[in-house]
Amino acid sequence: MSTRPDLTLDPKNWDSLRKLGHQMLDDMFDYLQEVREAPVWRLMPASDQSKFEEGLPYRPQDPEAVYADFKELVLPYPTGNIHPRFWGWVMGSGNAVSMLADMLAATINSNVCLGDHSAMKVEQQVLAWSKQLLGYPSSASGLLVSGASMANLTALIVARNHASGGDMRRLGARAMAGEMVMYCSGETHNCIRKAAEVMGMGAGSVRTVPVDEQFRIRTDLLEEIIQNDIAEGCIPFCIVGNAGTVNTGAIDPLDELLAISRKYGLWFHVDGAFGALAKPLPEYAALLHAIEEADSVAFDYHKWMHIPYEAACVLVRNAEAQRQAFAQTPNYLLQHERGVSAGSHSFGDYGIELSRGFKALKIWMSLKTYGVFAFMALIRQNISQARYLAQLIEQHPHLELLAPVDLNIVCFRYIRTGWSSATAQDVNKEILMRLQEEGIATVSATVIQGRYALRAAVSNHRSRAEDFDLLAAQVVRLGNVITESVCFG
Amino acid sequence: MSTRPDLTLDPKNWDSLRKLGHQMLDDMFDYLQEVREAPVWRLMPASDQSKFEEGLPYRPQDPEAVYADFKELVLPYPTGNIHPRFWGWVMGSGNAVSMLADMLAATINSNVCLGDHSAMKVEQQVLAWSKQLLGYPSSASGLLVSGASMANLTALIVARNHASGGDMRRLGARAMAGEMVMYCSGETHNCIRKAAEVMGMGAGSVRTVPVDEQFRIRTDLLEEIIQNDIAEGCIPFCIVGNAGTVNTGAIDPLDELLAISRKYGLWFHVDGAFGALAKPLPEYAALLHAIEEADSVAFDYHKWMHIPYEAACVLVRNAEAQRQAFAQTPNYLLQHERGVSAGSHSFGDYGIELSRGFKALKIWMSLKTYGVFAFMALIRQNISQARYLAQLIEQHPHLELLAPVDLNIVCFRYIRTGWSSATAQDVNKEILMRLQEEGIATVSATVIQGRYALRAAVSNHRSRAEDFDLLAAQVVRLGNVITESVCFG
Repeated sequence: MSTRPDLTLDPKNWDSLRKLGHQMLDDMFDYLQEVREAPVWRLMPASDQSKFEEGLPYRPQDPEAVYADFKELVLPYPTGNIHPRFWGWVMGSGNAVSMLADMLAATINSNVCLGDHSAMKVEQQVLAWSKQLLGYPSSASGLLVSGASMANLTALIVARNHASGGDMRRLGARAMAGEMVMYCSGETHNCIRKAAEVMGMGAGSVRTVPVDEQFRIRTDLLEEIIQNDIAEGCIPFCIVGNAGTVNTGAIDPLDELLAISRKYGLWFHVDGAFGALAKPLPEYAALLHAIEEADSVAFDYHKWMHIPYEAACVLVRNAEAQRQAFAQTPNYLLQHERGVSAGSHSFGDYGIELSRGFKALKIWMSLKTYGVFAFMALIRQNISQARYLAQLIEQHPHLELLAPVDLNIVCFRYIRTGWSSATAQDVNKEILMRLQEEGIATVSATVIQGRYALRAAVSNHRSRAEDFDLLAAQVVRLGNVITESVCFG
Repeated sequence: MSTRPDLTLDPKNWDSLRKLGHQMLDDMFDYLQEVREAPVWRLMPASDQSKFEEGLPYRPQDPEAVYADFKELVLPYPTGNIHPRFWGWVMGSGNAVSMLADMLAATINSNVCLGDHSAMKVEQQVLAWSKQLLGYPSSASGLLVSGASMANLTALIVARNHASGGDMRRLGARAMAGEMVMYCSGETHNCIRKAAEVMGMGAGSVRTVPVDEQFRIRTDLLEEIIQNDIAEGCIPFCIVGNAGTVNTGAIDPLDELLAISRKYGLWFHVDGAFGALAKPLPEYAALLHAIEEADSVAFDYHKWMHIPYEAACVLVRNAEAQRQAFAQTPNYLLQHERGVSAGSHSFGDYGIELSRGFKALKIWMSLKTYGVFAFMALIRQNISQARYLAQLIEQHPHLELLAPVDLNIVCFRYIRTGWSSATAQDVNKEILMRLQEEGIATVSATVIQGRYALRAAVSNHRSRAEDFDLLAAQVVRLGNVITESVCFG
C-alpha cells in the first residue's frame, strides 16, 4: 500500500462540524416554532433560481458555506406542507420527533433488507403495530414503502401472482389464457392505473366503474361488468376499494365490495392512503370495518400520521402469498445460522426493493412518543375542521360546496349568479394562485363533474379553527376583488 | 367548532425537546467518532429482543424515555456498514454531512413530486450533476429512487414502452405479437429478473448469457441467442450490461454490448449500481466509456458515494421516452401558471412514485461539501485496498482467491490441501460467522463456480490498509482454530 495517510470522508475537525450541527438543530427548531408566522409559499427570485445552474462541484467547500446555501436557497422555499394553512393535495405536516429520528437513522445508516440487526426488529414491530391499528390479523405480512403508489403496486403484484396460480413469475402475462382484469371506481387514484401499466397488464385492464352522487362506486354496475368480463373470457382477479378517494374523500361501500369479491373469488384490495387511518375512530368503524377482511390494504404514514416523507405501508392478509410473489435467494444473499446475516426474514422477499432505508425508526419513535390516541384525536379534529369549513361555505352566498364532505376533503368554489363554468374556473384559478402568491394559504384544485374546484384536504396537525375562518374570508375577498377588477360574464 | 383548544403534535415545551435534540446530536457525533472502537456487529440479547413484542402504544411517553429505548435497543445493534471493517454485501458508510442534511430535509418535509419549490430545483441540479459525473448528455432525463432495484426497474419499463411503440401502456404485454425478451449475463443482479416479473414479462423473458473466466458476458454467445430468439418470433428489446457485477465486480465488455445493441436495434441499459462510479477515474475510463452512449444507466449514491440509505439514480438518454412511459395528468394534479403548483416538470411523470422524499438534499450537500474529487479518490483507494487484500490472499498458503479482482470485490476462502468443497464451505462459513460474532469484521458470502466464498466488497471510506492486514490475519487465525478444533476431512 501507499505510505500516504488513508483518506476518509470523516472530518479532520469533528468539533467544527459538531458545532455546525448544533446551529442547524437550533435553526430547525426555530423554523418549526415560527412556521405559523411565515408565508405558506413564496416565489424564489430569479437570481436565486440561477444558482441551481451551477455545475458539478469538484472541489470541497466548507460545510458552513454549504449550509449558508441551504438557508438562502432551500429553506425559505418549501412545499409548505408543514404550515398550518397548507391544505394542498393530501400531505402531512411532519413532526419534530421524526425530524430527530431521521437524523438518528441517517447516522446508523442501516439497510433494512435482511439479517440480524435492530432496524429489522423495529420495522417488524412497526408492521405489527400497523396491523393492530387497522384491526388486521397479526398473521398478515407487510412492508414499509415510499408511498401509496408503491404500496398499491406491491399489493396488486401479490394479487396478480396469487390469482395466476404461480406461473406468472416465470411466464408473464402472455401465458394466461385470458386478459386479467381488475375493478375500481372512476374516482380511484391514478396510481392504480399506473400499477397496471407497470405490471404489463395495460391501463385497459383496469375497469373503471361509475360512481353514485356521493362519488362511491356503483356496486350494481360493478357486478354487471364482472359478469360481462367473465362472459367475454377475461379473468377478473381483483377489486380495489377506496377508503377516502383522492378527489373528495369518498369511502366506497367496502362491505359490499368485500361481499362481491368473495362471491366471484376475487382479491379485495383497499387503497386507504389516508382514509384507512380513520378506522380506529368509532364513528368510522362501521364504514371501514371491511378493511379487516380485505386481502390487502395500502396506507400512508406521511399523510394523516404526519411522519415525514417517505413512509407508507402495505399489509397482506396471506403472508405466504406476499412471499411467493417476490422471494428470491441469490447466492450473494446467503443467510447463515449466526452473525449479522442470520435470521430467516428478508424484507426483500416481500417487495420490489433490496436497498431499504430505516423509515421505520421515525414511525416507531413518533408512535411511542405521541401515542396513537393523539393521532386519532387529530384525525377527528381534521374531520370536524373540514365540516366546519363546509358550513362556512354553505353559509356564504358566493361560495358553493361541490362535493359531500365524507372525510377531510372540501371541494368548493367562489361563484356568482349567471357565471358560466369557464368564468367560474378563471376566477377560482386566480383565487387559488393569489392565495398562494400572497402567502395566505395553499389549496389545490381538481375537477368535480366538469367544474373546477378549489380543494382543501385537511390533514394538518397545526391548523386551528381560525385558519378556516381566514380561508373562507380570503377566498371571498379575492373572489370579490377579481370579479370587480375584471369584466367577467 | 368546539371551544376546546386546538390539538397539535407540536410540543407544549419546545425547549425540552430542543435540549433532547442537542443531546441526540452530541451522541451521534460521539458514535461516529468512536465507531472504529466498537464491534462491527453484536448479538442483541434475548431480553432486549422481547421488548420488540410490545403492542401498539396508545398513550404518550416522554421523548426522553423513547430516546432511552433507542439508545438501549437500536443504536448498539446496527447493520454495521458505517464501521471501518464492514465489507459485507455492497453498502456505503454514510457521512456526517448527510446525517445533518437528513435532519434538515425531515424538517421542511417537502414532497418532491411537482410544483415550484426549492426541493424540485435541488433534485434537478443533482440529476444534472449525475449526468456530468458519468459523462452523460445533459439532454437526458433522470430520477432519484430508493436503490438500484428501483432504478433498473424504472429503466426497463421505459425500454419496454419505447420498444412496444406506445401500445404497451394501454394494452399490456398480451397485445404484443411475440414475447419481448432481454439479455444479460448470468452474473447479473437478481433485481433484473425481479423487474421482469413485476413487469409481467416473466423471469423467462430474461435470457441469461454465460460468462467467460473473468465473469464477463460472452458476447459471441449473446449474438447467437439474439438471432435464435428472432428466428423463433420473439421480440428482443434490451441488453443489460454490468458495470461491476454483484458477485465479483466484473465489468462486462460494454463497448461490445453497445455495438450489438445498435446492430439489432435494442435498448442498451447499464446496471452500474456501484461500478459506474469508477468511470471518472482515468484508469477505468476506457472500460466504462460506453456508459456515455447507453440508453439508460442505474447507479446508487448510497453505495460507493456513501450517501445514507436510500439514494439511487436512473438516467435515461431519451427524456421523452422516459416521460412517455410514465406521464399522467389526473385532475387532482392540475398545474397552474403561478404559485406552488406552477412549473411544468413533475417527477411523477418520470417514474412510479408520486410521494417522493427530499433524498436530493443529502446528495446536494455532500457533493458540495466534499467535492467529487474526494469521492473519486476514495473509490480509487478502495480499489487499491481490494487489490492489496487480494495480494495478501495470494501470498498466504491457506488462502485462495476465487475470482479476479476487477474492481473492489474480493472473493476468497481459507483452504487446506485435500479438502472437499463441502469441508471448505463448512470451515469458511464458520469463519464468516465468528468474524462477525467476535466483532472483528463483516464480510458476506457468495458461491463462485460452486465454491462457497468469503466476499469482501470494499466500499468503505473508513477502511485503512491495516484493516485488511487484520482481516487476512484473522481469517487465517480462525481457519486454523476451526481446523484444529474439529476433525475435518
